[in-house]
Amino acid sequence: MKRSERLVDMTKYLLEHPHKLISLTFFAERYDSAKSSISEDLAILKQTLASNQSGILETVAGAAGGVRYIPYVGKDQTEEYVLDLAKRIEDPNRILPGNFVYLSDILNDPEDLRRIGEIVATRYAYDDIDAVMTIETKGIPLAQSAARYLNVPFVVARKRNKVTEGATMSVNYISSSLEIISKMGLPTRALPKGARVLVIDDFMKGGGTLVGMEQLVHEFEGTVAGAFVLCEADIKKDKMMEDYVSLIKITQIDHQKKLISSEIGNFLARTDFDRI
Amino acid sequence: MKRSERLVDMTKYLLEHPHKLISLTFFAERYDSAKSSISEDLAILKQTLASNQSGILETVAGAAGGVRYIPYVGKDQTEEYVLDLAKRIEDPNRILPGNFVYLSDILNDPEDLRRIGEIVATRYAYDDIDAVMTIETKGIPLAQSAARYLNVPFVVARKRNKVTEGATMSVNYISSSLEIISKMGLPTRALPKGARVLVIDDFMKGGGTLVGMEQLVHEFEGTVAGAFVLCEADIKKDKMMEDYVSLIKITQIDHQKKLISSEIGNFLARTDFDRI
Repeated sequence: MKRSERLVDMTKYLLEHPHKLISLTFFAERYDSAKSSISEDLAILKQTLASNQSGILETVAGAAGGVRYIPYVGKDQTEEYVLDLAKRIEDPNRILPGNFVYLSDILNDPEDLRRIGEIVATRYAYDDIDAVMTIETKGIPLAQSAARYLNVPFVVARKRNKVTEGATMSVNYISSSLEIISKMGLPTRALPKGARVLVIDDFMKGGGTLVGMEQLVHEFEGTVAGAFVLCEADIKKDKMMEDYVSLIKITQIDHQKKLISSEIGNFLARTDFDRI
Repeated sequence: MKRSERLVDMTKYLLEHPHKLISLTFFAERYDSAKSSISEDLAILKQTLASNQSGILETVAGAAGGVRYIPYVGKDQTEEYVLDLAKRIEDPNRILPGNFVYLSDILNDPEDLRRIGEIVATRYAYDDIDAVMTIETKGIPLAQSAARYLNVPFVVARKRNKVTEGATMSVNYISSSLEIISKMGLPTRALPKGARVLVIDDFMKGGGTLVGMEQLVHEFEGTVAGAFVLCEADIKKDKMMEDYVSLIKITQIDHQKKLISSEIGNFLARTDFDRI
């Protein structure tokens, strides 16, 4: 197979298998080519991704070595996307009674989900995430997209036990937006013991839901390796959780006056792009 | 920029924007290259994808023309994947009381979701789908993945109205697995009027949920352009819906005897791969 054809197929293969170590032997056999040629191909790929700040190709030396594609969105591109997103969120039509914000158009758009998923996967690329956790329903698309680019499974905590899930571990949590104590549960077989979990939700007010998911992770003897929310509402000043990362911060929302203001969240400040 | 570098970036760009028409001018400007060179690049890309049966690069001639990447999984690869999936589903540990089947490991795995999403997007590639619809909760990952490869938004019908969704259109439906009349609703702003909708669910027994979604589509003056389920259970013979496509058919399930059998669904029989 020619280099040009190999490059097309290799790019596709690597993009489809993020964070997975692929041996040079695999590619050499796939294309019936010498390992030295494959190495040269990969050097071109690495250089192209790096110069566009659109991905990292990591080389692992040695007998058990190979290459790994790490999805990556650079700081400037992240900032540009988030600023645009913040502007789109500042649409008064999004304000619902009770000062809730309609975000389903963003949460159900494949392009937004790709961008957000890649941005989250960049932030946690080297945090040894084993699984992403969210709570039904609106967090699911974000969790799925982040999980895709981290190439790990995601798990969905349910607010009600389901007959189609089997034995379930449940915890109580304070849903601050509703000011009531609720229950969330996860099938015992969904998450292996001791996993490092990235917790994700779409919207955070007081942080009670994140705390609930953290408790659930602990019940599975796991560790919260990160907590990400798409939007935080800077309305209640006393957050139940300190250590979270937000892409967007909603600074003002008033249903009656039809006012909504949003800005970039703490994501950029809390992400060390040089480390990645 | 060199051809090899262009090919890497172009492959990545096209894969990230399935079903979207990209003009040659866009690529010519992106790489500061002549359109004739871009045309040659695209010919290589097209040929490579075609020879692996791993995608279609469609060329649209004329002033408003360009190229479009269509995700595609060939018949043999689809069959191989589905047979393997059917085998994995035949695990007695999946059987839950009430003869429900645990599928969350598959529905939450990025690799399975990619494969299933691409297979669904292949089937409906030329059906002018405007949106994918599902019902919470387990259908969401499938809908999201199919929507990604079709590059259209997806919408999620809810079983309970939510304060964070605004005005909602609701219909009643017969949930045959529970034999009760239930309600599902969709925010009025979620789906434009007159859309062609692909309806997706994870599991089908009598088909009542699909019928409910069909009704909901009609309330939005839309058309059901297809109905896809991951698994159908061949237990109730009288289906409420005839025109659906299933990837897997569960032919036997017995919680007490710990027996579960599954086979390939009607997907292959109902898909004309030559047309695609």
